[in-house]
Amino acid sequence: MASSTLICETQPWKDLKAHLDDIKNTHLRNLMSDTDRCKSMMLEFDNLFLDYSRQCATTDTIDKLLKLAEAARLKEKITSMFNGERINSTENRPVLHVALRASRDAVIQSDGTNVVPEVWKVLDKIRDFSERVRTGAWVGATGKALTNVIAVGIGGSFLGPLFVHTALQTDAEAIESAAGRNLRLPEAVAKHMVAVSTNLTLVEKFGIDPENAFAFWDWVGGRYSVCSAVGVLPLSLQYGFPVVEKFLKGASSIDQHFSSAPFEKNIPVLLGLLSVWNVSFLGYPARAILPYSQALEKFAPHIQQVSMESNGKGVSIEGVPLPFEAGEIDFGEPGTNGQHSFYQLIHQGRVIPCDFIGVVKSQQPVYLKGEVVNNHDELMSNFFAQPDALAYGKTAEQLLNENVAQHLISHKTFSGNRPSLSLLLPSLSAYNVGQLLAIYEHRVAVEGFIWGINSFDQWGVELGKSLASQVRKQLHASRKKKEPVEGFNFSTTTMLTKYLEASKDVPADPSTHLPNM
Amino acid sequence: MASSTLICETQPWKDLKAHLDDIKNTHLRNLMSDTDRCKSMMLEFDNLFLDYSRQCATTDTIDKLLKLAEAARLKEKITSMFNGERINSTENRPVLHVALRASRDAVIQSDGTNVVPEVWKVLDKIRDFSERVRTGAWVGATGKALTNVIAVGIGGSFLGPLFVHTALQTDAEAIESAAGRNLRLPEAVAKHMVAVSTNLTLVEKFGIDPENAFAFWDWVGGRYSVCSAVGVLPLSLQYGFPVVEKFLKGASSIDQHFSSAPFEKNIPVLLGLLSVWNVSFLGYPARAILPYSQALEKFAPHIQQVSMESNGKGVSIEGVPLPFEAGEIDFGEPGTNGQHSFYQLIHQGRVIPCDFIGVVKSQQPVYLKGEVVNNHDELMSNFFAQPDALAYGKTAEQLLNENVAQHLISHKTFSGNRPSLSLLLPSLSAYNVGQLLAIYEHRVAVEGFIWGINSFDQWGVELGKSLASQVRKQLHASRKKKEPVEGFNFSTTTMLTKYLEASKDVPADPSTHLPNM
Repeated sequence: MASSTLICETQPWKDLKAHLDDIKNTHLRNLMSDTDRCKSMMLEFDNLFLDYSRQCATTDTIDKLLKLAEAARLKEKITSMFNGERINSTENRPVLHVALRASRDAVIQSDGTNVVPEVWKVLDKIRDFSERVRTGAWVGATGKALTNVIAVGIGGSFLGPLFVHTALQTDAEAIESAAGRNLRLPEAVAKHMVAVSTNLTLVEKFGIDPENAFAFWDWVGGRYSVCSAVGVLPLSLQYGFPVVEKFLKGASSIDQHFSSAPFEKNIPVLLGLLSVWNVSFLGYPARAILPYSQALEKFAPHIQQVSMESNGKGVSIEGVPLPFEAGEIDFGEPGTNGQHSFYQLIHQGRVIPCDFIGVVKSQQPVYLKGEVVNNHDELMSNFFAQPDALAYGKTAEQLLNENVAQHLISHKTFSGNRPSLSLLLPSLSAYNVGQLLAIYEHRVAVEGFIWGINSFDQWGVELGKSLASQVRKQLHASRKKKEPVEGFNFSTTTMLTKYLEASKDVPADPSTHLPNM
Repeated sequence: MASSTLICETQPWKDLKAHLDDIKNTHLRNLMSDTDRCKSMMLEFDNLFLDYSRQCATTDTIDKLLKLAEAARLKEKITSMFNGERINSTENRPVLHVALRASRDAVIQSDGTNVVPEVWKVLDKIRDFSERVRTGAWVGATGKALTNVIAVGIGGSFLGPLFVHTALQTDAEAIESAAGRNLRLPEAVAKHMVAVSTNLTLVEKFGIDPENAFAFWDWVGGRYSVCSAVGVLPLSLQYGFPVVEKFLKGASSIDQHFSSAPFEKNIPVLLGLLSVWNVSFLGYPARAILPYSQALEKFAPHIQQVSMESNGKGVSIEGVPLPFEAGEIDFGEPGTNGQHSFYQLIHQGRVIPCDFIGVVKSQQPVYLKGEVVNNHDELMSNFFAQPDALAYGKTAEQLLNENVAQHLISHKTFSGNRPSLSLLLPSLSAYNVGQLLAIYEHRVAVEGFIWGINSFDQWGVELGKSLASQVRKQLHASRKKKEPVEGFNFSTTTMLTKYLEASKDVPADPSTHLPNM
């Protein structure tokens, strides 16, 4: 494919469009009765178990999607990413979050230099620093050992660490390692400061000892930074480096799988291709992420960021406007919350492809009085039941056989034919959490590679920022010098004026300073 | 309109369809230059300020939507709701959450009985109970006054109280009233128990003194229960009844506005009609809820539930399958989080109508070193800027004038023409939080009334539940009696077998009991 050809102009894309009718005329109920098909749509890797048999797809669809991957030069693009080429071309940067979790002896080149030693230099520094803090060798201003860590996130880079921190709440090793320690991830300022930055010179100017600064690099985007010092430092202070190292190893295991497994057995590739199928061919604009574990409650918000900021683009990487829509609307809650919230719509309203994420071993299954299964089996009963409920639905005929009152038949009918996939993790150990993260990061990359967009820039956040700076100037001028609101449209002028008027008792001068924490 | 006529068969619906082209050919940039239009699309009520001028709509669109409201008999339906008629016809129940916040002297009939005295009987009991607890007159088992309250939510009914509890974190009166007290809203069990239930007989059987049981009624759905004892009791224990009463009064103020204001000046009606316009005519499947306040971080998850469970339906209230899609996908985060997460997609990817929610007065605005505006003005700069960024976008021509490099022009172009609305609250007092809740509750009802669906049932959650009970039986039989997995399809059988095998060290008997808290 010539670099300026859009993917939708290729033959495999057209073949998939032509194939749509075959799928639209087949109910998932029927597809699910084909055992060979179901068998071929399951996959195990490194104790993960993936079942994608409830996608509205046949083996023929998968073959055609693999041809689409060829047309999009997916293999070459993945290789370019791992080779440190500047695939984020609009910002002229490599995309190397995989280097952040590469083993010490791995070689990942960026501009002819192996970046892995640099990564490990920072990791070693974090290991050493967090050990000193955790053993009490490092003390605070009052001479006491430090047990509370506040990670001051900038922008979206706190969502990843927040997800991992929350996810580790049930892992026995993590719990034990974190005893007596607190980690908070607010956007605030702290008194005892160390820094994580791409700009160590600026950090020094700011008054922080370079010894207490931890580098990361411009080849790590904010939304891909959880495996950099941004995430690893606070997590290491809280859980100790050995736990965090397991997290990195889990992610690295998926990195290797992603870069080397044949596409038909490659979890992130298959998930990415199926998402393209759901979005661009079946026309489903959203995806629900439904972990059956409260500890994964911050997973959906993090993936919302990873996915929507990466793939919410309107032009190809070469700048050609896309004649199709890229990117999904990602949202989700743990299943236990979601079931009482938006599952109604998912079952009887719009079709929303669902990711069900289950965990085999929970920390401590307990039996509640009068229940035949423990609380984890209870949770998992829902994890196993919902995908079939979505796929099969329930017909009027079935309801008639159950003697449901005539006037309720159509209200209790479920159309079914709603796609989902199920991913079963062995546990929520740090290793498994790392795997989960990397699967989703790479799935998003696969989608972007297929759509032919740049999943690693984010120009779409610029305009709001620049307009906000105009408003900021106006608020300052109006509060300080009573200048009238000018240069905005009628609506904004009206609302700004109302706002200034209603809040006019706010001091115009920076006399109120931030209180000490 | 005859009761079995679908709304899409009426003339006003067809007129709106015909009107689509006028709108699709007009950029919001142009619509915004018409001052008279903008002026007519702003509305003030009870210190709330609504600006809907950035909807892709003209005054003509609004007129046509008001005709659609007539065709849908919106006025009659609202009246029926307030009159306690059994408008939740599939469950044969009235829908009377408005009675929960009616003033003591109001009269709201259900089956010929005024329910307001019953409501106030419970509210008085809550007031009395929470006063006794808060003054220390009521003590726990160890003779100490109680300061920690754990509200054990069932299903989705904890999302509402969680939203309100979080929202009150910056209100001075709420802060002062809650000093030294903790409220947690997990799904767990507690030791010192009082109960909130529709079934007081069962509560007594369970061993709870009826004196400590607080009633609510089958005319309150779980997702509309935050103003019942479900929400009012824990909030009252935490903040005292006077604060909670203000919350109820704020909601009640909107109830009265909703039931009496002419539609063209009626906030929930206008918002509901505009949502129908966005969803059913412009074809936008989602809505982003973007409060510019961290204290409103639980608002979107709550509204996700209220909206998606209410309107995610596939048949009309009479049971006729809908030839159009009802219900939006609702999602959102506070703007500060969202800006670094999904705003990229909102600006340059899919069109998602946005609700911007701002607050005039923050608790304690502070100036950070080197900033010309305080932190609240900084936040609000974004609140004012984003809607214009979405509406106007940025053209290639503008970028050329700014000397942007040619190869970045299309990446930095913003199409604009993306609808939003802005709602400005005077503060986050309990009263304002009550207003906000009621506006969204009624907006969802308006959408459902127009679409002709039953927004108050939730049959779509039943199928998953019944399939889960099959899985539960299987897990029990397999763990306890080693019975093989039977009666499921190949995929589910395979995954269930893997799960049982991988977790076989879980005790088969209820020997592990729930530890005391």
